[in-house]
Amino acid sequence: MLLPNYLGGRWQQGTGPGTPLYDPVRGTELVRVDRTGLDIAAGFAHVRQHAGPVLRALTYRERAERLGRIVKVLQAQREAYYEIALANSGTTRADSAVDIEGAIYTLGQYARWGETLGDARFLIDGETARLAKDGSFQSQHVHVPTPGLALFINAFNFPAWGLWEKAAPALLAGVPVVVKPATATAWLTQRMVADVIESGVLPEGALSVVCGSSAGLLDALEPFDVLSFTGSAETAARVRSHAAVAERSVRVNIEADSLNAALLLPGAGPGTAAFDLLVDQVVREMTVKSGQKCTAIRRVLVPAEVHEAVGEAVSAKLGAVVVGDPREASVTMGSLVSREQLDHVRQGLAALSREARIVHDGAAQPLVGVDPDVAACIGPTLLTARDAVTSDLVHRLEVFGPVATLVPYQGLAEAEALARRGEGSLVVSLYGDDPAALASAALTLADSHGRVHVVSPEVAASHTGHGNVVPASQHGGPGRAGGGEELGGLRALRFYHRRSAIQASAAVLGVLAGGVAAPAL
Amino acid sequence: MLLPNYLGGRWQQGTGPGTPLYDPVRGTELVRVDRTGLDIAAGFAHVRQHAGPVLRALTYRERAERLGRIVKVLQAQREAYYEIALANSGTTRADSAVDIEGAIYTLGQYARWGETLGDARFLIDGETARLAKDGSFQSQHVHVPTPGLALFINAFNFPAWGLWEKAAPALLAGVPVVVKPATATAWLTQRMVADVIESGVLPEGALSVVCGSSAGLLDALEPFDVLSFTGSAETAARVRSHAAVAERSVRVNIEADSLNAALLLPGAGPGTAAFDLLVDQVVREMTVKSGQKCTAIRRVLVPAEVHEAVGEAVSAKLGAVVVGDPREASVTMGSLVSREQLDHVRQGLAALSREARIVHDGAAQPLVGVDPDVAACIGPTLLTARDAVTSDLVHRLEVFGPVATLVPYQGLAEAEALARRGEGSLVVSLYGDDPAALASAALTLADSHGRVHVVSPEVAASHTGHGNVVPASQHGGPGRAGGGEELGGLRALRFYHRRSAIQASAAVLGVLAGGVAAPAL
Repeated sequence: MLLPNYLGGRWQQGTGPGTPLYDPVRGTELVRVDRTGLDIAAGFAHVRQHAGPVLRALTYRERAERLGRIVKVLQAQREAYYEIALANSGTTRADSAVDIEGAIYTLGQYARWGETLGDARFLIDGETARLAKDGSFQSQHVHVPTPGLALFINAFNFPAWGLWEKAAPALLAGVPVVVKPATATAWLTQRMVADVIESGVLPEGALSVVCGSSAGLLDALEPFDVLSFTGSAETAARVRSHAAVAERSVRVNIEADSLNAALLLPGAGPGTAAFDLLVDQVVREMTVKSGQKCTAIRRVLVPAEVHEAVGEAVSAKLGAVVVGDPREASVTMGSLVSREQLDHVRQGLAALSREARIVHDGAAQPLVGVDPDVAACIGPTLLTARDAVTSDLVHRLEVFGPVATLVPYQGLAEAEALARRGEGSLVVSLYGDDPAALASAALTLADSHGRVHVVSPEVAASHTGHGNVVPASQHGGPGRAGGGEELGGLRALRFYHRRSAIQASAAVLGVLAGGVAAPAL
Repeated sequence: MLLPNYLGGRWQQGTGPGTPLYDPVRGTELVRVDRTGLDIAAGFAHVRQHAGPVLRALTYRERAERLGRIVKVLQAQREAYYEIALANSGTTRADSAVDIEGAIYTLGQYARWGETLGDARFLIDGETARLAKDGSFQSQHVHVPTPGLALFINAFNFPAWGLWEKAAPALLAGVPVVVKPATATAWLTQRMVADVIESGVLPEGALSVVCGSSAGLLDALEPFDVLSFTGSAETAARVRSHAAVAERSVRVNIEADSLNAALLLPGAGPGTAAFDLLVDQVVREMTVKSGQKCTAIRRVLVPAEVHEAVGEAVSAKLGAVVVGDPREASVTMGSLVSREQLDHVRQGLAALSREARIVHDGAAQPLVGVDPDVAACIGPTLLTARDAVTSDLVHRLEVFGPVATLVPYQGLAEAEALARRGEGSLVVSLYGDDPAALASAALTLADSHGRVHVVSPEVAASHTGHGNVVPASQHGGPGRAGGGEELGGLRALRFYHRRSAIQASAAVLGVLAGGVAAPAL
């Protein structure tokens, strides 16, 4: 089965043989994708000229209402999505839910938040400023939707959520979307887009999907388009150097590598609630989606004197993880996305092993219900850095699988410096029981982490998890993490709007109709 | 005289022969700049490690107070700056004032605005969001100063304002500054930095100046540094493709080319106030600083039926401009910055002449008190596009001198489309007398212009001018203009801060001390 693309307001089949998508557990071919022969420039032009104006003629409330209807469309097809995820991503039902239910929940939140903006078509930014002493001439900033399209080049690990966490604010802003999913797991993205298009909820061309190679897509971008990329730092660098970005100033949001850390504050030894909470999160982050989450804990910063105790506690729990075919009832962790990814993880482990010793070896763990020569399965591996300060790879090599490294530290100042050695991460989590110490460390690390997740005993049952991206909080981090900003509630609208300062008489500013006060953007 | 550089907390003389700076009117050599032998990486490291923490330990109010003291330092040396500008930029006193008084005024505004932030060290962004239904776990976004340095690579046309409009918000944010002025006019920048360093107002290393080549400067940038570039689109593309930006995610703000437009709304014919206001602004923008302003009017969009009348009215006023040595009392317009720039302008005029005919020829205007073979002087030239729609260069070639082109249009929709043909500009100005029509056109063009300046009869005496950048309004535009955002009051702080979402218990968020509610950023 060759999956068609939707672009230029119509379904288009590629004319090439296609690239196969596989079941990473069984190794069988599932479907193919192809975009050979598609006229990308013409398709993008159609989106800009036809879908954009129709979408922008709607108000925020009207667009929010459509997001709410998309939620219902997706809910109605939920089981089909779980089937595709099981077959194509090799994930357990719980892990598929992180992607699928995460997508639906995020869409629902934007539907709700968008409604609060009412029947407006642009955002009023701040107060007017007097430019003449008598107030006859003033300045008023506004945010208006960008008159281009939004191209998403997405990663393989979140085919559902990766689409909707970006598309929800884009569509709410009035900007049409073209998504190019990662080929390995493009099926789920393509199917969701197909369901939404069939539903007729969105104006024609407001949502498009192009599967296959991303080659040449950026060539068709124009100055008012925006581009959101999630993937490797290497590809990110190529994206930033492309003429669309470097010469035509296409606005770009990038999420790349991230060496996220969990930091156990000094004094929280074995037997304390903070210690147990850290252990829980480390195990969870190593195993959910087999560690294939950009927000997963890669570095576990612990006081040197308790690092062995942490290693033992984490290892004990990792030993209870059952790895294999997610179709088996006993299995709690499925496969990686592909054999290629499995090779990457093995290579990464070999590299890390030069600086760190293995505490718990996932490669020694039995695999249930799979052929080890076929399935992309591997057990979770915990390492300990031999020397936290002189270690290099530990702080810059993201092994995208069920892998984390303990980094023993001497004193809080060293721990904070080690966290920053990631050179910019999506998230750091802090574990302790002193609110003042936690608040202080959170503020210190806020400059180098897009999110600081603070776990103290009183939130043991209510905190949202180190690696869980909640739509109300910003997702993105500086430096190595790519410098992007996504989500954060209505803050996400900013990327899809252009700010302008309108300088005019009070009379002219008085007739600026159809705007609503902007929230924090 | 070889001007020394200040970096790493000390004055450092380059060891090379230096690059000469000239008097563009007389052709004489003035001073030399050189940075041969400077250890840039070590200097930047010193700035990050020593100046950054000292600056960030101060509160916004304390830093604002220092900006106020810088104002006094500069005011005390004002006459020296006018002398340097006259000698090195060849500008009249009125034109030098745009740069020098603009710099001092902008600094003063940030001193005043910064004080309103009080004794805080970070900004609280929006309200807390509940992540648990019972409110026990919440999310609070904050903006904290980036723990790096700010490198400014500046343009030749505003050696004073170009430094301070960027340095004021950077220093207020707690981020140390290194400025690399354009070589042609580096003297004024270097002198101002020297005066401020001598005054001792700023912590050691908080402000540095490196003169000469920019080669290799970006190599020394690290992930938490920020880079602000003003200059050509060509260099901007190289900046964006540099590994610092493409690989290390150094945050970059770019202001590049801009084909700013003035738009006379339909119906505003000769004899109306709007017509006269447009003519005044076109003449002013063509001649102030000899048209060497990134915000100057390059395209004059006028109803086809009045384009000849506009041409006549503008030409009549241009004929009264006296061009030559600004030391002569009768001279109202000085020189370009260099003979090289004069060549660029002549080449640009030759190119434009293929699509447009000359209405007023500045080359035919007499030059007063200068040797035409030596001085970088040229009179203002107005052209008319032969065909507004098929014209190409008119919409994309920025001739950086006293040059503008009339673009006759048919109907408002065509005019708006023509304004957007600039593919993103810093500013568009609108002229008319109907507040509703002006407001509507302003909103329409806000998506492709960083600033919309609306001139109606009631603001004839109070509006701030098409090309004047007021610190209260955003400066920067999408697409060809580089996609940057500067100024806009305290909005400028955003570039120098990092946003982070702190997720924690109400108890932890409650002890986040030392923050102040962020204004619109």
